[in-house]
Amino acid sequence: MLKIGIVGASGYTSSELMRLLVKHTEEIKIELATSETYTGRAVTDVLPNLRGLIELEFSKLKVEELKDRVDIVFLAVPHTVAMSFAPGILEQGVRVIDFSADYRLKDAKVYEAWYHVEHTSSGLISEAVYGLPELHREEIRKAKLIANPGCYPTGVILASLPLLHEELVDLDGIVIDAKSGISGAGSKPSDTTHFPNREGNIVAYKIGVHQHTPEIEQELSQFAGREITVNFTPHLMPMSRGILSTLYFTLKKDISTDGLLDIYNKFYEREPFVRVLNKGEYPQTKAVYGSNYCDVGLEVDARTKRVVVMSALDNLVKGASGAALQNMNLIAGFEETAGLDFPPLMP
Amino acid sequence: MLKIGIVGASGYTSSELMRLLVKHTEEIKIELATSETYTGRAVTDVLPNLRGLIELEFSKLKVEELKDRVDIVFLAVPHTVAMSFAPGILEQGVRVIDFSADYRLKDAKVYEAWYHVEHTSSGLISEAVYGLPELHREEIRKAKLIANPGCYPTGVILASLPLLHEELVDLDGIVIDAKSGISGAGSKPSDTTHFPNREGNIVAYKIGVHQHTPEIEQELSQFAGREITVNFTPHLMPMSRGILSTLYFTLKKDISTDGLLDIYNKFYEREPFVRVLNKGEYPQTKAVYGSNYCDVGLEVDARTKRVVVMSALDNLVKGASGAALQNMNLIAGFEETAGLDFPPLMP
Amino acid sequence: MLKIGIVGASGYTSSELMRLLVKHTEEIKIELATSETYTGRAVTDVLPNLRGLIELEFSKLKVEELKDRVDIVFLAVPHTVAMSFAPGILEQGVRVIDFSADYRLKDAKVYEAWYHVEHTSSGLISEAVYGLPELHREEIRKAKLIANPGCYPTGVILASLPLLHEELVDLDGIVIDAKSGISGAGSKPSDTTHFPNREGNIVAYKIGVHQHTPEIEQELSQFAGREITVNFTPHLMPMSRGILSTLYFTLKKDISTDGLLDIYNKFYEREPFVRVLNKGEYPQTKAVYGSNYCDVGLEVDARTKRVVVMSALDNLVKGASGAALQNMNLIAGFEETAGLDFPPLMP
Amino acid sequence: MLKIGIVGASGYTSSELMRLLVKHTEEIKIELATSETYTGRAVTDVLPNLRGLIELEFSKLKVEELKDRVDIVFLAVPHTVAMSFAPGILEQGVRVIDFSADYRLKDAKVYEAWYHVEHTSSGLISEAVYGLPELHREEIRKAKLIANPGCYPTGVILASLPLLHEELVDLDGIVIDAKSGISGAGSKPSDTTHFPNREGNIVAYKIGVHQHTPEIEQELSQFAGREITVNFTPHLMPMSRGILSTLYFTLKKDISTDGLLDIYNKFYEREPFVRVLNKGEYPQTKAVYGSNYCDVGLEVDARTKRVVVMSALDNLVKGASGAALQNMNLIAGFEETAGLDFPPLMP
Repeated sequence: MLKIGIVGASGYTSSELMRLLVKHTEEIKIELATSETYTGRAVTDVLPNLRGLIELEFSKLKVEELKDRVDIVFLAVPHTVAMSFAPGILEQGVRVIDFSADYRLKDAKVYEAWYHVEHTSSGLISEAVYGLPELHREEIRKAKLIANPGCYPTGVILASLPLLHEELVDLDGIVIDAKSGISGAGSKPSDTTHFPNREGNIVAYKIGVHQHTPEIEQELSQFAGREITVNFTPHLMPMSRGILSTLYFTLKKDISTDGLLDIYNKFYEREPFVRVLNKGEYPQTKAVYGSNYCDVGLEVDARTKRVVVMSALDNLVKGASGAALQNMNLIAGFEETAGLDFPPLMP
Repeated sequence: MLKIGIVGASGYTSSELMRLLVKHTEEIKIELATSETYTGRAVTDVLPNLRGLIELEFSKLKVEELKDRVDIVFLAVPHTVAMSFAPGILEQGVRVIDFSADYRLKDAKVYEAWYHVEHTSSGLISEAVYGLPELHREEIRKAKLIANPGCYPTGVILASLPLLHEELVDLDGIVIDAKSGISGAGSKPSDTTHFPNREGNIVAYKIGVHQHTPEIEQELSQFAGREITVNFTPHLMPMSRGILSTLYFTLKKDISTDGLLDIYNKFYEREPFVRVLNKGEYPQTKAVYGSNYCDVGLEVDARTKRVVVMSALDNLVKGASGAALQNMNLIAGFEETAGLDFPPLMP
Repeated sequence: MLKIGIVGASGYTSSELMRLLVKHTEEIKIELATSETYTGRAVTDVLPNLRGLIELEFSKLKVEELKDRVDIVFLAVPHTVAMSFAPGILEQGVRVIDFSADYRLKDAKVYEAWYHVEHTSSGLISEAVYGLPELHREEIRKAKLIANPGCYPTGVILASLPLLHEELVDLDGIVIDAKSGISGAGSKPSDTTHFPNREGNIVAYKIGVHQHTPEIEQELSQFAGREITVNFTPHLMPMSRGILSTLYFTLKKDISTDGLLDIYNKFYEREPFVRVLNKGEYPQTKAVYGSNYCDVGLEVDARTKRVVVMSALDNLVKGASGAALQNMNLIAGFEETAGLDFPPLMP
Repeated sequence: MLKIGIVGASGYTSSELMRLLVKHTEEIKIELATSETYTGRAVTDVLPNLRGLIELEFSKLKVEELKDRVDIVFLAVPHTVAMSFAPGILEQGVRVIDFSADYRLKDAKVYEAWYHVEHTSSGLISEAVYGLPELHREEIRKAKLIANPGCYPTGVILASLPLLHEELVDLDGIVIDAKSGISGAGSKPSDTTHFPNREGNIVAYKIGVHQHTPEIEQELSQFAGREITVNFTPHLMPMSRGILSTLYFTLKKDISTDGLLDIYNKFYEREPFVRVLNKGEYPQTKAVYGSNYCDVGLEVDARTKRVVVMSALDNLVKGASGAALQNMNLIAGFEETAGLDFPPLMP
C-alpha cells in the first residue's frame, strides 16, 4: 500500500490527480490532502464531481508528520513555495513529485532569469529528475525528487524528439505556436480567466518571455546535444482543457509525410501514451480530452521545405496530473499505465 | 465472456458505449459493430479518441449471423428502424438493448400520436422493459428487450420520484424546464447543430410536442398511480454534453429544504448513481460530465409554496450509453456498476 | 449639446454605454468618465474595442464640479454606493440615470429585506421613475432620477404585460425560468465567472432569493392592479451576453397561439424595441445580440392549458445600457431610438 | 440613390452585408436579394436578427433584368458559380463585387492548381481589381469588377506590409499560423461545423494546400517586388467569428518593438480601419468583433531575432462584407467609412 499526500490540494492539478487516484487499480491510498483555504472541509464540498467517490477532509500541512503518514508527496503549490517545502519533506525520507517549476531547470541562473525570483534550494536541483518518462524513464524510477514537466513543454518536446533524433531538421529557427485552454491558468479567477473576456476571444500572451521556453530549450538541447533556441508563442483559447502545439521546422533533406510518419511510429512504438496519427489526420484537443494521451501528427509542405508537426494533449492530465501519476507509477514499481489507460471523451 | 454486438455503431451513443466498454472490468468482448456508412473502416478512423484502445472494423449488419456471434445487441439506430430489426434479432435468442423510442411507450397509439409514424411491432411492446434501473431493476434483470430511456426522461423522473412517493406535491401543473447540450441532437449535422447557430445562443424548441413528454408522463403516472400531465419545455444550450432539468412543483404541505433533502437521501440511499446534493448546492452539468451519475438538488421557496428540484446528468452517459451499460450489467449478472463507477471530469 | 458624465465608468454597463454613445446621432458629448481604479488612463487602454473612437481619460469623481460640466450623469456604481452619490448630484440640478437597484423598489423595507442593507436615501424613492419606457414613458420624460431596470425584470415584464392586460391568465403560480449570460455578473472576476467553471456548465442560483424578484413583482402587481408573487429561478449559461426568460402561465380561457400573438402584436405595435415573433418562431439570444431589441414569442400548450412565453434580450443593451440610453433620449427630448436602431449581430 | 442587388443572399456574407447596409448612412437601397432556396420568403424569416429592419423577399435571379433594377451586384455565390454569372452581369453595365475567389488570382493556372477546377472566365481576370483598399484604393475607385479578398489574406497582408515596405525581414521562411472562427466555413452544416465537434476542440486543417495561400503570396510578392512563398497553416477555433493571424518573420536588422511600432503607425496613419496597438498590447478577436477594424500588434523577440506580428479581424466584416461595403463606398464615391465606422462589441 502506497500512502499518498497531496499538498496544496484544492487547485486544478490536485483535483485532477484525485480524480485519477480514486480509480487507480493498484494498492494506493490518499492519506492526506492539505489546503490552507479549505482546512476542515470535505474534499467533495470543494470538488463536487468527486462526491461519493472520496471520503477525506482537507487538513493543514504539518511537514514534520509527513514521514509517519505518507510515502510520497505531490507538491501542488506555486513556484517558490515548492522549494520552501521540498527540502524539509525529502529530509524525512518522503519522496516528492513537484508540480511547480522550481526544480525543472538545471541551471539556477536560468531559473532566476525567467522567473524573476531567487532560487533558494539550488542544492537540490542536481538530484531532481525532469519527469518526462518518454525522455527520462530510468532515472525517474530511482528518483527521490521529480520535477513534473510543464504543460506546454510536454507537448512540444514529444512533437520534436523523432526529428531531432534523426537529425532531419535545421535546429535554428524552430517556431512553436501553442494554443492552450484556460484551465492552464489555474483555478484562481483573474481578468484573464473571466468568462466574458475569453469566450469567442483569441489572443497571444507573454511573447518571447513565457517561462516554459527555457524548459523546452533545455530538454531539446540536451537531447540534440547542441544548444537550441526556440521561438515560443502561447495563445489563449476559448476552451477549458487542452493544448494544441503547432511546430514549424525547416527540413534539411527531402522526406515525405509518409516517411516521417514511419520515423515517428518507430520512435514511439513502445510508448503507451504517445499516439502517432495516420497520414491526413491532425491532432485535435477533443480526441485526448480527459486522458493521458498525447496525439502527434504531421504534414510535410514540400513547397516551403517545412514540416508542420502538431501535438495535442490535455493540459491537466498528460500536461500535469496524469504525468505526475505516471511518474508515481514508475517510482512505486506499479504498472506504468495503472490508472491512466482509459479513453478520452469525445465529443 | 459476454459477446456484444453494436448495430448502427458510428453515432454518438455507440461511440460513447464503446468508450465505456473498452474499460469494462468484467468479462466482455465487442464482437461486432455495424455501420452502413463506414463498413470496412477501422473504428478508430471514425472515432479518433479510441485510437489504440480498440481493434475493430465496422461491418455490415447480417441479422441472421448474430446468433452465432453475439449474446446481446445494442440497437443504436433511429426510431422505426429499431422496430424493423428488433423482432428478427430477438427471434434468434439474442437479447436487445434498444436506444430508440420504439418500445418505450406501453401504448402504441400514444407512440403513433407523438412520433407520427405507424408502430409496426406493437406485439413486442408488452415484453419490453423500460430500462431505468432506479424504477424497474428486477424486471430488467430478466428482460430480453430493454427500451433504454430517453435522456430527458431519465433526469426528470429521477428528480420527481421521492416527491411522488411521499405524496408531497400537487400532481397537476408540474412545470419542467429542461436545458440540453447539443450532442443530444445526434452526430448528424444540421442547421440546428451548426456551430455559429448555437454558440452564445439559447432557444427553446418543440414546446408542447417534444416526443419525450409521453415517456415522462407514462413513468410518473405509473409510479404515482394516477394520470399525470406535465408541461415539458426543452431548450438548446451552447455546450456539447449535459442536461440540467429544472422542475417546479407546488407543495401540498409545509416542508423545509432540509426535510425534503432527508426524504431524497433516504429514497436514493442504495442507488449507486444518484447523488443527492447538500443544502445550498445545486446540480451543475460539469459535475457529472462524462459519468453515469445523476445529481439531484432542491430548494423550497416558502414564499410561493413551491419546491424547485433540479437534476443534472450527462446525456450521453446516464442519459444513454451509461444507462444501457448499467442495463447490460443487470441482464448479464455483472456488478451493476461495472465499467461505470468512475468520476466525472471537472473542470 | 447634451453633456454627459459617467460615474464608475470601467465596468461592462459603462463600456457598453460608451460603445452606444460614440455612434449616437444626436448632439451629445461624453464630458467625463470617472473611475477610481483607472484614473488618468485612456479609456481605450481599458476598453480596447473603443480604440480610435473615443478620446477621453478616466478621471476622479468630484461631485461638486458636476454641475459646471454635465447635464446628466449615468451612475454605474454598485448598489448602496449609488444612493450615497445620487442626492448630492441631484442637488446640483444634474439629472441621474442610476444603473443600480437603489431606487427601483418603491418600498424601502422591501429593498432592505432583499438586499440586506439599510436604505439611506429613502426620501428620494418617490421621485425616482422606474425606467422601463414600455411602462412609464411619460413619467420618464419628466424625471430627474431614473432607476434603470434590472436585466431580468425587463425581459420578464415585457413578456408578461399583454397577458395581464387582457386578464387571460391565472395571476397565482407564475413560473419564471431565466437563463443569463455571464456578463450579467459584471466585469469583476470571481469563482462564478471563472472560464473553466462556466464553459459547458449550466447551474441555477439564488433560488427564491434573487434580488430581481421584488422588482418583477412590483411592476407586474402595479400593472395588474393586484398583488402578484412569482417563482423566479435564474440560471447561468455558458455564453457572455443574453438572457432568455421562459415564463409559464396557466390560461384562464381557451385561446390559440395565433390569438395570443395577435394580442401581443397589437399591444406592442408602437413599441420600437419589442419584436413579437411569428407563430412557430421562438426568441433566441443571438437574434438580439448587441442590440436594444427584446424579442417575444409564445406557444400555447392546449394539453396542459398553459402558455409558454419567452423573451430574449441582450443584458448589456436592452437589459442595461441601451435602456439607459433610451431613457436619456426621452429625458433630453431626442428621438427615442437615437443611437439604438441598429441590427443585432448574427451569427 | 445607389440600387443594390445581392445574388446568393441567404449565406453569412450576405446576411452580414444586409446588417451593414440597413444602417448605411448614404443614399442606397437594397433592390433585390436572390436565393434559390428561399425564393418568395421574407428575408427576416431566414435572418431573424433583421426583423423590423428590412422589408424584402428573396427572389429568383434573373440576370437579364439586373440592368433595369440595380447599379451594383454583390455576388455571394460559391467559386465557379461566380464566374458563370459575372460576365453576363458586367455585360449589362452593372458593376460586380465578387465575394468568391474566381477573380482574385491574376494567373488562371495558379487558380486551377489550387482550386482544382477549370477557370472558365480568364478573360476577365485582368479587369478585376483585388479589393483590398489599403493596397489598391485608387484602382478600386475605377473598377467594374472587384475581387473581394479572402478573410485570411486580409489579416495576413495587413500584418505584413510595413515590414516588407521597409525591407526589414527575410522574405524567405515566413511562417503564418492562423486561427479562425467557424463562421468562416459558411452557413452550410457539415461534420466540421457540427457544434459537438468544435466546442472545446482545436485542430489545424489543409496544411500546405489551403486555397488562400496563393492569394497571400500574390499580393505580398507584388508589393515586395519579389516572389514570396509562405508557410500558411489555418486552424479552427471554438468560436463563431474572428481570425487571429500570428506571423513569424526573421529580422534582418536590429530593431526594437518600439521602433517597429513607429513604422507601423506611420504606415497606417491614414487608414481608417487599421488600428496599430500600443507596445505590450496584442490583438484579440473580441476587440474587433462585429466591426470593420483590423487590429495589428507586434513583439520583437531579440533572443531569436524574430518579430511576431499579429492581426485580428472579424472574418464576416473586414474579412468579407465590411470590406465589400468599403469597396462599394469607393466605387460609388461615398465616404469610404460610410456604414462602417461603428465600434466593435466587447465583451
